[in-house]
Amino acid sequence: MTALPAAVRIREVGPRDGFQNEPETIATDDKVRLVDALARTGLGRLELTSFVRADLVPQLADARELLERIDIPGGVERSVLIANARGLDAALEVRERFDGVGVFLSASESHNAKNVNRTVATSLDELRRVLPRAAAAGLRCTAIIATSFGCPYEGEVPEDRVLELARCLAGAGATEVGFGDTTGMANPVQVGRFFTRAAQELGGEVELTAHFHNTRGQGLANALAALQAGCESFESSFGELGGCPVPAGATGNIATEDLVCMLHEMDVETGVELARLLDATRDLARVLGRPLGSRTLAAGPIDWHRG
Amino acid sequence: MTALPAAVRIREVGPRDGFQNEPETIATDDKVRLVDALARTGLGRLELTSFVRADLVPQLADARELLERIDIPGGVERSVLIANARGLDAALEVRERFDGVGVFLSASESHNAKNVNRTVATSLDELRRVLPRAAAAGLRCTAIIATSFGCPYEGEVPEDRVLELARCLAGAGATEVGFGDTTGMANPVQVGRFFTRAAQELGGEVELTAHFHNTRGQGLANALAALQAGCESFESSFGELGGCPVPAGATGNIATEDLVCMLHEMDVETGVELARLLDATRDLARVLGRPLGSRTLAAGPIDWHRG
Repeated sequence: MTALPAAVRIREVGPRDGFQNEPETIATDDKVRLVDALARTGLGRLELTSFVRADLVPQLADARELLERIDIPGGVERSVLIANARGLDAALEVRERFDGVGVFLSASESHNAKNVNRTVATSLDELRRVLPRAAAAGLRCTAIIATSFGCPYEGEVPEDRVLELARCLAGAGATEVGFGDTTGMANPVQVGRFFTRAAQELGGEVELTAHFHNTRGQGLANALAALQAGCESFESSFGELGGCPVPAGATGNIATEDLVCMLHEMDVETGVELARLLDATRDLARVLGRPLGSRTLAAGPIDWHRG
Repeated sequence: MTALPAAVRIREVGPRDGFQNEPETIATDDKVRLVDALARTGLGRLELTSFVRADLVPQLADARELLERIDIPGGVERSVLIANARGLDAALEVRERFDGVGVFLSASESHNAKNVNRTVATSLDELRRVLPRAAAAGLRCTAIIATSFGCPYEGEVPEDRVLELARCLAGAGATEVGFGDTTGMANPVQVGRFFTRAAQELGGEVELTAHFHNTRGQGLANALAALQAGCESFESSFGELGGCPVPAGATGNIATEDLVCMLHEMDVETGVELARLLDATRDLARVLGRPLGSRTLAAGPIDWHRG
């Protein structure tokens, strides 16, 4: 097998991507406790919340309160998702409480229209105004391109288009671009080809991040293919939370526990203490009161030292 | 990415491995309908049941009745699992109702002791007597080596030991040897290394089959690694059923639906019509009255032609 990177960076997106997609809003007290626990697992990056309209996303209406109440150790990158300039304005009111912003658009017109009611060009124009302002405020800027590997409404999404969007976003100030398999349409051959090409064309200028969903069970196989293509940055969600507002029924991100378990078994470093992460996810399961998709949570970590 | 095989063979083991591990015995009428449906999905190999002591495995006490009642199209390989000579005797009473037998032992002493209360050497001796008799009866012989990638009681299992057992079983008449990751301890790097070496050392004499569990979500990543190492034969279970009698809590095989979905997306042929397979699995979910682990069952196949 191709040599894998010795270490990777993982951004935990459960507190944003996960909590946003829960039908019931999670109490801020619970969120604070869960985020503080995640921040003590060794995860180097946390997406904490999103500054969006409370009437559209009531699950994250406590964004500011959450940021003010959590206690994140130094060295853990704290980021928030923003949809537009208004979101950035709101976030900047508590500028000292986070280190970076995430922005997003979809690679396919139909998904972008259904998700944010704009054309991709309009979204890109908005981000071209937002990203320099965020960068000027000293924020690290990450741009996520949804439906990078296929669109549930349009089908195939051309690689050229995704890479061109990534180039535009990097040009506008994003130092990291994430490629989202929003509804789990990617396969490992496609992922391997994509990240190989992305590294060749963009690897020098911008950090390339893989964001997979486990919609059809293929999430970790796609992560393996990305790794084999040299990808060193991943997003995942504790408990396999997450999804996408559109289409209905879009299911979870790859579970951080399962990703970390697989990476550690392959001697790829993550910095994460799996046992601590599983403690946080057990607390999450208790809060949500339902079984979670994470398999390592159910089975426990591999114990090589029994007997 | 390494070129993948153009096509693979899949043995559906749900009717044996899956039904055996269900807490409630499935009615024979339901089994007959499910097996007949599976046999019409394009799956080329079905493990139908096991001839074992009814007091030990009541879930499969209807082995003979099942074989007599099912209606399997020509060209679909029908196999049964047997534990020992007595099992073979019982199976041979309905010899015309199946094409092959599966036999098994564990690579690790502790797992073999807990599973069949014998040393590995005693199991191997038994299989050395059983396999030639089965072959003489015109049966195709498959041997499965459980705990090939790690033992829940002992930890690491040496590759040398697993390959030596495979060599012995091939020498005794097995034309196919399956390597079972019985409790989901394998990782893709290990799997890639193992199947590369197995193909070099044994590929000429015997068919090599991969049998993965999705215990920690890594099942399809392991399948990908095996494919990349040239493996062309897989076992899986519809609905992600299955497990192992020991230890308690050992979870399911990789889901046939998820495996087929991933393979087809990568243009690896399986012969399976995914929609028909999903129909069978939906019927299974109805029979069992609980959600199944298969993700493609929940999400539906990828539809590239919308929009």
